[in-house]
Amino acid sequence: MLTYLNTMDSIIAAEGTLPLNVKLLVEGEEEIGSPNIERFAREHRRMLKADTLAMSDTTRYSTRVPAIHYGYRGLVNMQIEVTGPVFSVHSGVFGGIVRNPAMVLARILCHLKDDDGRVTIPGFYDHVRRVEQWERKEMANLPVDDVALRKYLGVDTLAPEQGYTLLESRYVRPTLDVTGISGGYEGEGMKTIIPHRAGAKVSIRLVPDQKADVIGPLVADYICSLALPGSRVTIPHWYGNDPMLTPTDTPAMAVAKRAIEYGFGRRPVLVRSGGTVGAVTALHRELGIENILMMGWSSPEDGAHAPNEHFSLEDFDRGMKTVAALLYGLAQLKESEMTKISS
Amino acid sequence: MLTYLNTMDSIIAAEGTLPLNVKLLVEGEEEIGSPNIERFAREHRRMLKADTLAMSDTTRYSTRVPAIHYGYRGLVNMQIEVTGPVFSVHSGVFGGIVRNPAMVLARILCHLKDDDGRVTIPGFYDHVRRVEQWERKEMANLPVDDVALRKYLGVDTLAPEQGYTLLESRYVRPTLDVTGISGGYEGEGMKTIIPHRAGAKVSIRLVPDQKADVIGPLVADYICSLALPGSRVTIPHWYGNDPMLTPTDTPAMAVAKRAIEYGFGRRPVLVRSGGTVGAVTALHRELGIENILMMGWSSPEDGAHAPNEHFSLEDFDRGMKTVAALLYGLAQLKESEMTKISS
Repeated sequence: MLTYLNTMDSIIAAEGTLPLNVKLLVEGEEEIGSPNIERFAREHRRMLKADTLAMSDTTRYSTRVPAIHYGYRGLVNMQIEVTGPVFSVHSGVFGGIVRNPAMVLARILCHLKDDDGRVTIPGFYDHVRRVEQWERKEMANLPVDDVALRKYLGVDTLAPEQGYTLLESRYVRPTLDVTGISGGYEGEGMKTIIPHRAGAKVSIRLVPDQKADVIGPLVADYICSLALPGSRVTIPHWYGNDPMLTPTDTPAMAVAKRAIEYGFGRRPVLVRSGGTVGAVTALHRELGIENILMMGWSSPEDGAHAPNEHFSLEDFDRGMKTVAALLYGLAQLKESEMTKISS
Repeated sequence: MLTYLNTMDSIIAAEGTLPLNVKLLVEGEEEIGSPNIERFAREHRRMLKADTLAMSDTTRYSTRVPAIHYGYRGLVNMQIEVTGPVFSVHSGVFGGIVRNPAMVLARILCHLKDDDGRVTIPGFYDHVRRVEQWERKEMANLPVDDVALRKYLGVDTLAPEQGYTLLESRYVRPTLDVTGISGGYEGEGMKTIIPHRAGAKVSIRLVPDQKADVIGPLVADYICSLALPGSRVTIPHWYGNDPMLTPTDTPAMAVAKRAIEYGFGRRPVLVRSGGTVGAVTALHRELGIENILMMGWSSPEDGAHAPNEHFSLEDFDRGMKTVAALLYGLAQLKESEMTKISS
């Protein structure tokens, strides 16, 4: 964000004005799924109206290769709660006759995805858009250092979905992960109890054209159907964001590519992102902005969302150079080129 | 315990001595599987040597029906640890290519027992002793108020093992329960991570003639075999106690029945217990005591091991009366009757 502010500040100091009309929107709810920005955008359509949306909450493809993201996965985050007896009971006295909520939970989670990484919920893949040939080719051509990746993660083997490459599994395939699980006695040693409850949090990544409003209830209903007699399964909370794809053959995209090449010294690759940016989805939908430029300055090794997250001063400088080139480049686009796109 | 101490105190006050030789052993590790008493018994065989062992860490069959327990289930408690990447990673960036330890854990737990309550670990039932006809008949004749039980537990349905009654599932069938489960983010809201670890605690109840030393490694090996590529499954800790059955047709048992009938005003039923008493197993094995009288004073509704555990003063009095009758009854048994039994 500061790369935009600093660059605009410098331009105004030198020229007295910017080469084009810029509206800045700072949103701080990305990590919790951006629950409020859609309503904000709806209520302030006129104020926020724009031809092009540029944002930099993505990363380069690798330390050496800059990237523009032309799509990202959507999200459904869900809590699962399984209850049994109203209090935890003795596993000797009641073991064998009381349904164990932790085991029902395990059964549910085990039935959501198979060992090959494929989600097993009926209907889950119904609306997944076929990946285009040029995309598969583009991904196949990108360098993947899976030795370094395994070393970084400390695992022997990566586990992409059967039949798909690492990048396809990461960018264009939907997936499902348990992000947290709890129940019963979790401290040191053992307690001989049957827990009265167990719960899990599940995060699902969607791809075009899956809709959060369709997948959320579909998954919730399936999960609830997996209760066993003597247990109760509920979904106390879920929320979602849709996935997105933005056109790649626009004049604005060409400007963005040139700007990155200027700032980072290398032509960017076009990739999709495995993550989710709820704010962009909301602005796209509510304001009808089609020109979306997701051009991030940071490196994948910077540890976004992880402990010791960092960002280098060199990339800060490169980002500011890119913003300057982007603003002047967009300003030179003909009015007709912009209008054609955003209509 | 106090019922024994008070009764003996009163007898000594009145008579100056007890009618028979009594050794008292107080052990305080029952809730953690009594890990030290076996070694203690081995090292103090001479001091602890006895013809009969009486203990009262069991309950009556119901509020109205006193009981003598002639057997109990054994125990294997086990911790399971599943690890994946060395730190928790972003579920958007890595979702689809990194094996999720919480899902591997769910898969393991789901594969330990089927929906009918049967343990699915190969070899688990190999040494389970066939229940005798008189036992099934005795259990079938005992009153079971499953409406009250369901109300007490707050569940719609109980879940006994398919093909077995409630009491059979509780007393004479082995079972397996998850007592705790944890991993990833367990607080309020959601975090979009793939957890680097997930763990569970499992408690298995054994029946004659399953041995903890056989079942423990059997289960551990099976669990470890369920790891998936990209995950690591370990059993950082397990311990066990063997199940036990004690003869029911002995003179000492007859004395115990009469003593309870005197103290509680009703002839006791003979039942097995679903729980485990590690100390008795150790004393039985190390000291060769066959006359084991498990005659508890408390009611199943007293909430043993649960919040608000309690014990009534009326039962305290009944227990003391029973202890007095027991001591004088055992004292009257002929030397030969005791020797025959304990040989």
